[in-house]
Amino acid sequence: MAIVLGDNRYGKAEVRLVRVDRGAEHGITDLNVSVSLSGDMADTHLTGANDKVLATDTQKNTVFAFARDGVGAIEDFGLRLARHFVDSQPSIHRARVRIERFTWTRLGPHSFAGAGGGTRTAVVTYDGEQAWVVSGIADLTVLNTTDSEFWGYPRDPYTTLQETKDRILATAVNATWRHSTTEVDWDTSYDTARQSLLDAFSGTYSYSLQQTLYAMGERVLTNDPGIAEVRLSLPNKHHFLSDLTPFGMDNPGEVFYAADRPYGLIEGTVLRDDAPPAGPAWD
Amino acid sequence: MAIVLGDNRYGKAEVRLVRVDRGAEHGITDLNVSVSLSGDMADTHLTGANDKVLATDTQKNTVFAFARDGVGAIEDFGLRLARHFVDSQPSIHRARVRIERFTWTRLGPHSFAGAGGGTRTAVVTYDGEQAWVVSGIADLTVLNTTDSEFWGYPRDPYTTLQETKDRILATAVNATWRHSTTEVDWDTSYDTARQSLLDAFSGTYSYSLQQTLYAMGERVLTNDPGIAEVRLSLPNKHHFLSDLTPFGMDNPGEVFYAADRPYGLIEGTVLRDDAPPAGPAWD
Amino acid sequence: MAIVLGDNRYGKAEVRLVRVDRGAEHGITDLNVSVSLSGDMADTHLTGANDKVLATDTQKNTVFAFARDGVGAIEDFGLRLARHFVDSQPSIHRARVRIERFTWTRLGPHSFAGAGGGTRTAVVTYDGEQAWVVSGIADLTVLNTTDSEFWGYPRDPYTTLQETKDRILATAVNATWRHSTTEVDWDTSYDTARQSLLDAFSGTYSYSLQQTLYAMGERVLTNDPGIAEVRLSLPNKHHFLSDLTPFGMDNPGEVFYAADRPYGLIEGTVLRDDAPPAGPAWD
Amino acid sequence: MAIVLGDNRYGKAEVRLVRVDRGAEHGITDLNVSVSLSGDMADTHLTGANDKVLATDTQKNTVFAFARDGVGAIEDFGLRLARHFVDSQPSIHRARVRIERFTWTRLGPHSFAGAGGGTRTAVVTYDGEQAWVVSGIADLTVLNTTDSEFWGYPRDPYTTLQETKDRILATAVNATWRHSTTEVDWDTSYDTARQSLLDAFSGTYSYSLQQTLYAMGERVLTNDPGIAEVRLSLPNKHHFLSDLTPFGMDNPGEVFYAADRPYGLIEGTVLRDDAPPAGPAWD
Repeated sequence: MAIVLGDNRYGKAEVRLVRVDRGAEHGITDLNVSVSLSGDMADTHLTGANDKVLATDTQKNTVFAFARDGVGAIEDFGLRLARHFVDSQPSIHRARVRIERFTWTRLGPHSFAGAGGGTRTAVVTYDGEQAWVVSGIADLTVLNTTDSEFWGYPRDPYTTLQETKDRILATAVNATWRHSTTEVDWDTSYDTARQSLLDAFSGTYSYSLQQTLYAMGERVLTNDPGIAEVRLSLPNKHHFLSDLTPFGMDNPGEVFYAADRPYGLIEGTVLRDDAPPAGPAWD
Repeated sequence: MAIVLGDNRYGKAEVRLVRVDRGAEHGITDLNVSVSLSGDMADTHLTGANDKVLATDTQKNTVFAFARDGVGAIEDFGLRLARHFVDSQPSIHRARVRIERFTWTRLGPHSFAGAGGGTRTAVVTYDGEQAWVVSGIADLTVLNTTDSEFWGYPRDPYTTLQETKDRILATAVNATWRHSTTEVDWDTSYDTARQSLLDAFSGTYSYSLQQTLYAMGERVLTNDPGIAEVRLSLPNKHHFLSDLTPFGMDNPGEVFYAADRPYGLIEGTVLRDDAPPAGPAWD
Repeated sequence: MAIVLGDNRYGKAEVRLVRVDRGAEHGITDLNVSVSLSGDMADTHLTGANDKVLATDTQKNTVFAFARDGVGAIEDFGLRLARHFVDSQPSIHRARVRIERFTWTRLGPHSFAGAGGGTRTAVVTYDGEQAWVVSGIADLTVLNTTDSEFWGYPRDPYTTLQETKDRILATAVNATWRHSTTEVDWDTSYDTARQSLLDAFSGTYSYSLQQTLYAMGERVLTNDPGIAEVRLSLPNKHHFLSDLTPFGMDNPGEVFYAADRPYGLIEGTVLRDDAPPAGPAWD
Repeated sequence: MAIVLGDNRYGKAEVRLVRVDRGAEHGITDLNVSVSLSGDMADTHLTGANDKVLATDTQKNTVFAFARDGVGAIEDFGLRLARHFVDSQPSIHRARVRIERFTWTRLGPHSFAGAGGGTRTAVVTYDGEQAWVVSGIADLTVLNTTDSEFWGYPRDPYTTLQETKDRILATAVNATWRHSTTEVDWDTSYDTARQSLLDAFSGTYSYSLQQTLYAMGERVLTNDPGIAEVRLSLPNKHHFLSDLTPFGMDNPGEVFYAADRPYGLIEGTVLRDDAPPAGPAWD
């Protein structure tokens, strides 16, 4: 028996880059970029020799320098960075670049207001030969006030929940989707996927959040043949009907208490049965 | 010398109430309500006798019960609640109700998506005779990519900052404004105030964030004669130009690093010189 | 009627300063320092002229430079900084320095682990003639598993709460206390105040959190004659007894659900009846 | 090509359970419990039929009911719960129970104060035949003021970092370790692992955080033969030396700026070369 080094990676996390495009109207790209590299890193772990360790400070500098010529779609920016690290450093065998893009709405030719509606994300992986791209959206909060039921579940000795034929269904969508190729119009693809998620959520008469999850994933795949697989993580943000009977009042689905914890958490994958292998895309 | 009880108040904080209005199209009102009461409370502090202490659980129940007949503008809902507590409990001499209203956008007849653009707030105070209403907005993030300078400040032995004739100016607006009366069309007033803040921020060629602050407060007062006083708290969310010269690149105002801490914090009041006394409105 | 500038202040917030004292054993002082200045600031608000605006960047530099010769007690560090800003800048008429000190425990001669047990705070105000010092502790979480009752409160039409003769009482203490002078052994005073809060919380048989609050404030004043006034803000972190009867079990005060929101919030002041005027100490 | 359901799981997250043991001295167990189940769940995703979906509300109830007879070590509590769900529900093929235990220190026979020093964690997985247990600690903040160097790294065109022979090394340890069996004295094992992490961090003269990471993992394995594998995620919480030369001061390693973002992130695994297969332990 011996103690050995297993999988490892390192990098600079959460580089907060803002790029201004100064045309007649200014544009803004507001990013949070995290780089993670792996490769021939045994020396630094075992002896502290750092000759194969591209400093995380250098990774940060590279993010800013690469933004000098423009950023474009975050998937493309991630691909540029990931390829650079692996192709320029022999000791780096795999690069992972994760990017969040925060949303702004235009107020004027050079003025913006922060917007909600979820944060666009991309995770790019490159191993020197192949690249994998996973796009996504984080914290897209949605709520249906009706068209949601939940009943017919098994009743074991610990079951007290009442069945319901009408409830609020609310969640914060965290969805990621894997592309089959890297030849994609990323912005169009993102807009289509985001709209598909919203349409499927609001348009599905739901008997469980699992059913809604599947409908959302299926809609994304149906509307974009270049997407191979969708993963969703949906907290069930419970809204409990307030009991007003002690005050002599009924409550016909109007007054709710929004609970924090605990919450349901529904996670699932929807994919094409002929999807190419995922490789390290989701690692 | 004796040790005595000074100012005190108590209540239920952060009651998360969601009301659904079930017309042809459903409406949603998503609130965080905090109640704070004060009055003849020496007994409970000194002896633990609770006969004058309306339980905070009761306060919570009241919030839900009062929502049964509709909520309306948060200022009106706060006024209803505050008046109830003082007028129905002899030991309660003053009530403070603070409400946050979260913003949703419509996706369909009974579907909604969470929105950004700041959280609407109201703080209502009632003492049995008079009511004071302070409306506001929290965390309205805005950014100008240009039309901001900062120079001409004094240079003491600790000053190293370079003057600039062009910088990013970004902040998260936290603004509150006091109304002269309680006879107000609250929703119209809020929309006007919010738009005034956005217009003044984006339309002001700025030599300091203080100047922008004053312009924002002045605009709110100019556009609504019923508002007596505006208070603003504006973090200066610094965006530092990235130094790309080590990489042989210039950086003509395009690539920035968005810093977290420290940040500037600019706070100020803009008011009418004939504003009625504030009383306990801001306590 | 005219629109005018009211109260205002500005400064650099959350300067994260860590000082290492490199003796035989190293010491560490881990601070979050916020500076806020006010004075003759009409010009920058009204015209953008900044010749009276000591840059917030300069304030930050001053914090680091003043740490070069040691920090000492945070109250003394705050006094040094506040006096410097007012005494060296004619346009600055008042300085407020707020400091948080994070707690570390020693692991070795130059090794430390982050500790809980609350964050020490100080707020120093100086107006060119007088200084006020408010010390405090934030987020000191405490819990009693028994010796807490709550009953005898009024029952109005919205009251459903059951009386209890035995409950968990838990809170996160946020306490601040005003000193009568600035000639204080700050570290000893802090240790005494913190221990007084813990002793009074754990040693009080409580009929309401208000009663516990008063006991805590009184204990601080009793144990330190140099403290004039104590302010406490105590969230009532509710622990609800879990109803296990549907599963054929009793629950004799053993299994609880710790709720997030809503929570009670109890705020109060305990002071000496001959306390000197507070002036701007708490503004 | 068809669209199909892939991996999925669901459950109740963040059940906040507090158990009081009421002996001569009271004990307290403060937990955050998350359950996640998977199995034969196609129906609910595809048709909304819920007859195989044990409600997440039932899972929550089970957590509280199982605490009635005591909790014990969180690993044992997780095993009891995981086995119950799989063994009692034919449609559930795998259960995952994740538990956080918050740390309290004793103030008196029934009084406690919240403590720092990291949160104890356990993740238990059970598939009807075998159980896997991963213990851990989250957010254990540690800092060395010296005995840390970083130099010898490659210099590419984007490298500007200066080499250093003396720096602050600080991190928030997030460590998890997989046990070879479920026959373990969990509390002793945890105490040994936690102390091993602290000792290795404070006792390692470090040339890179990777080297420290490996030393920490190796120490845990060396001190507990029942542990097969350790995974560590260590943010490099940068402390930058403040440049005081503009103020005519040197800075011999005494005054630092603690940065928020970006930060380095070092992740790695240390394991025995004869470790049993991990199976779904870390999924």
